[in-house]
Amino acid sequence: MIIPKNFVLDVDGVMTTGQFFYSEIGKIYKIFGSHDHDGLKLLKKLIKIRFITADKNGFAISKKRIVDDMGFVLDLVSEETRFDYCNKNFDLKLTIYMGDGIHDAKLIKECMYGIAPQNGRQEAKEVADFVTPSNSGEGAVLDACLKIKDIYFSK
Amino acid sequence: MIIPKNFVLDVDGVMTTGQFFYSEIGKIYKIFGSHDHDGLKLLKKLIKIRFITADKNGFAISKKRIVDDMGFVLDLVSEETRFDYCNKNFDLKLTIYMGDGIHDAKLIKECMYGIAPQNGRQEAKEVADFVTPSNSGEGAVLDACLKIKDIYFSK
Amino acid sequence: MIIPKNFVLDVDGVMTTGQFFYSEIGKIYKIFGSHDHDGLKLLKKLIKIRFITADKNGFAISKKRIVDDMGFVLDLVSEETRFDYCNKNFDLKLTIYMGDGIHDAKLIKECMYGIAPQNGRQEAKEVADFVTPSNSGEGAVLDACLKIKDIYFSK
Amino acid sequence: MIIPKNFVLDVDGVMTTGQFFYSEIGKIYKIFGSHDHDGLKLLKKLIKIRFITADKNGFAISKKRIVDDMGFVLDLVSEETRFDYCNKNFDLKLTIYMGDGIHDAKLIKECMYGIAPQNGRQEAKEVADFVTPSNSGEGAVLDACLKIKDIYFSK
Repeated sequence: MIIPKNFVLDVDGVMTTGQFFYSEIGKIYKIFGSHDHDGLKLLKKLIKIRFITADKNGFAISKKRIVDDMGFVLDLVSEETRFDYCNKNFDLKLTIYMGDGIHDAKLIKECMYGIAPQNGRQEAKEVADFVTPSNSGEGAVLDACLKIKDIYFSK
Repeated sequence: MIIPKNFVLDVDGVMTTGQFFYSEIGKIYKIFGSHDHDGLKLLKKLIKIRFITADKNGFAISKKRIVDDMGFVLDLVSEETRFDYCNKNFDLKLTIYMGDGIHDAKLIKECMYGIAPQNGRQEAKEVADFVTPSNSGEGAVLDACLKIKDIYFSK
Repeated sequence: MIIPKNFVLDVDGVMTTGQFFYSEIGKIYKIFGSHDHDGLKLLKKLIKIRFITADKNGFAISKKRIVDDMGFVLDLVSEETRFDYCNKNFDLKLTIYMGDGIHDAKLIKECMYGIAPQNGRQEAKEVADFVTPSNSGEGAVLDACLKIKDIYFSK
Repeated sequence: MIIPKNFVLDVDGVMTTGQFFYSEIGKIYKIFGSHDHDGLKLLKKLIKIRFITADKNGFAISKKRIVDDMGFVLDLVSEETRFDYCNKNFDLKLTIYMGDGIHDAKLIKECMYGIAPQNGRQEAKEVADFVTPSNSGEGAVLDACLKIKDIYFSK
């Protein structure tokens, strides 16, 4: 069996509920769940984990959780260039991708193994190899990590 | 086929979850979703998009998202005058309207094509031409945009 | 038909989602919905509307929404004294009560017409005359107001 | 019948919805529900109630609610040492444990009576003696308290 090298995840709607909390000043909060870090800790010794986001306004919020508190790499990549960025930086045939939006569908379809959360857009779920039982922000990434471990790293 | 000229949307309960976060100081936050802007970007070259809201207390919050971050026009229109305002400023026979509340029902019914989100009031959904599969704040406006593009602008 | 004189409502879990947002400093936010005020405006000329709450820590938050922004009276009444307070201050036989918790069950049962929101405790819903189709914070109070108007004030 | 001596509860995903609200500064809010304190007040004269949490970053938030506002003891215990900590400090054969995560499963299984909330991880629910009808943050702990009272303290 061919073993994947990279696990690339979108942030909003994958690690978060997809909600943006706005005040008069702008985007202030995002909601992360309590289960997902448990899964990422299980996988990080087995596969290279990378996060990407198109959310410029909310980048500092995502960075706080993903980079500062959990210790992963997060890159700002626009939705338009997301596919080319991943295709250039990762070998898609050895990459697992998890995303939730209409712009993620192509990557989910063309990577080695594509994952979408239960509450992702229908366009993403239709082309995914695995749709998680949990919604994003409620354990979808833990579901994904357990599935990946089970398929590729359980022996 | 007659092509619509305007797409007019209510904000609270359409672009947001409809929730108001109150502190001791007053209304502080609203929740917007991560999918809807994708849809509005698809449509904005094809049809004139306008937002209206009756929420005076929370106007600055809605303005931050709708006007400053997404670049659309937002007008403050009371619920009582909403129908007359739209009737006067837009040709209702060429206007698509999306709303969620009991005061939106008349506009939804009398415009060219009326839309309500899945979690809208029953009174609004009953008279809508299209009820989105997604709830507000979870992709209802993206659903609406894809539907409009499919019906009127897909050829 | 006997016409009710008072409509008494609990706040947390009736006008709000029942959630308390805590920071290190304490209880900071509650979530109110966008539909309920529409219903209260319809009823307030027809019946005396009063709010009670047992939440001392969060009283200033509830007061901001109920008293300052909507113009109603709100009293702080502990759960233990709630029944006696209502029994003494209102004629229960002419009072409609809406509550969601285990301590509300007795009032819901013994008032003229008892209402519980869809997401209320089973103990409250079992003794209610009307369980609203909507959850609290998502239109439960508008549902209640439309029902009351329909039963007692529609002719 | 043997009567339990301790009721030990995890905090995130048991007393809260499991959600972390992040700003640029870090973890700022958690959501607690309005029903659970009613249940804990019923039980606290009958059994020793203790809370544990592995959340170091959010400890001050949990402490505010659990210790300052409700008056219970809360200990910071890492997930890796949770089982040994409980085994050493409490007699597991006389301890009821409530948890929601994959690391709680062993404790739920090996304690006297294990409880998981409706929205807990499948891994925790599978080994629980009782899965609450309510989700965490929506009355799961009140459900648990009523169940414990009914089984062990109702005569």
